[in-house]
Amino acid sequence: MRHRSGDSVLATDGMGTEYSVELCDVSPDSVTGRVVTSAVCPREPRHRIVVAQALLKHDKLAQSCEQLAELGVAELLPFGASRSQARTRDAKQERLQNVALSGMKSSTGSLLMKVSQEVELAGLAGRFGEFDRVLLAYEEERQAGLAGLLSKGIESVLLIIGPEGGFAPPEVETLRQAGAVVFSLGPRRLRSETAAVVATAALMQLLGDLEQQGVRQTSQERRC
Amino acid sequence: MRHRSGDSVLATDGMGTEYSVELCDVSPDSVTGRVVTSAVCPREPRHRIVVAQALLKHDKLAQSCEQLAELGVAELLPFGASRSQARTRDAKQERLQNVALSGMKSSTGSLLMKVSQEVELAGLAGRFGEFDRVLLAYEEERQAGLAGLLSKGIESVLLIIGPEGGFAPPEVETLRQAGAVVFSLGPRRLRSETAAVVATAALMQLLGDLEQQGVRQTSQERRC
Repeated sequence: MRHRSGDSVLATDGMGTEYSVELCDVSPDSVTGRVVTSAVCPREPRHRIVVAQALLKHDKLAQSCEQLAELGVAELLPFGASRSQARTRDAKQERLQNVALSGMKSSTGSLLMKVSQEVELAGLAGRFGEFDRVLLAYEEERQAGLAGLLSKGIESVLLIIGPEGGFAPPEVETLRQAGAVVFSLGPRRLRSETAAVVATAALMQLLGDLEQQGVRQTSQERRC
Repeated sequence: MRHRSGDSVLATDGMGTEYSVELCDVSPDSVTGRVVTSAVCPREPRHRIVVAQALLKHDKLAQSCEQLAELGVAELLPFGASRSQARTRDAKQERLQNVALSGMKSSTGSLLMKVSQEVELAGLAGRFGEFDRVLLAYEEERQAGLAGLLSKGIESVLLIIGPEGGFAPPEVETLRQAGAVVFSLGPRRLRSETAAVVATAALMQLLGDLEQQGVRQTSQERRC
């Protein structure tokens, strides 16, 4: 509310459209403006990345949530693993959704990251069919790195990050049989919330989503 | 202190050597053990990465510090930029050094990330000669991505991350003239603490430091 009539601001519907708006009238409880231009997903990644992260104790899932929303991840899907130390109430979907909103705003995104209701392992596996690749970061993997698992034409990736104590081996086997491919983030053991942002950043670097891209501008001009 | 005599533990001197130790005697205030094997930098990145990060308000530099220490960054060098919103006392070098120690332990690293005393911009530029590349993440850069700025034979990188409000253009010009190369992390605007971990992860992915590597094991056997 530091703005005045005549100022230009960016606005978004959170569903991919960004509006450049010239403010017409600013009062303490409402603002009206004129849409000057609009653009569709001007700064969204070209690939749909969904991160499934095991429930974490304390506020650690909120930290992941904020960083992933800034990066333009499409959805955060919390899930319960056998070694998850968090209770269900810690997930607090509504609060996380607000954290995601804050991340979208600060990063000038236009697509709001969806924070889904937590699922169990079977529910997670049930989503695999939606993606071109399902990749599971596993600290016991001693071979495969991320770079070798990607190929041209991939449009969507589900990235799975385990809980603080790591996955139990039978859980990895279940997810592997459902179609997940296991990879290593290197020889060090990263905290779950660090693994989430590191894996997403590495994936986006490999997919070209940390590069500049042409703005898909539309020439609509609307009046409010 | 949940361990008993006969247990095996990993220990490190924080200077690159890791010891596999069999505990001989465990009492409430001391532990003795026998070094079974030792290894030099078994899980450290092959490249020396130093992150210079502008002072941040609240506890945001601690979040960066923890995540960078987990990744195996060699040094965190806080610096004051014109738009830094933190006071000097917020940097709290000693506290950050403890955060780095915790990050090293949790990630099973063997080299403790050094947290340096904060410097001003001139002091930062004075360090450039130590590195094969000096890379500055700049949200106004519209062309260069990280991948195009690396080449074979690079062993050390200084990565510079600006404050919350971004660098002032004259600051970027000063650092550029001193030898920094400006790059973009993509079209979105990342918070400073997110930019630090994202840029480091992307850099490590490109340099091969997020891949598994052979363990350089030595056959020393020492007695305590």
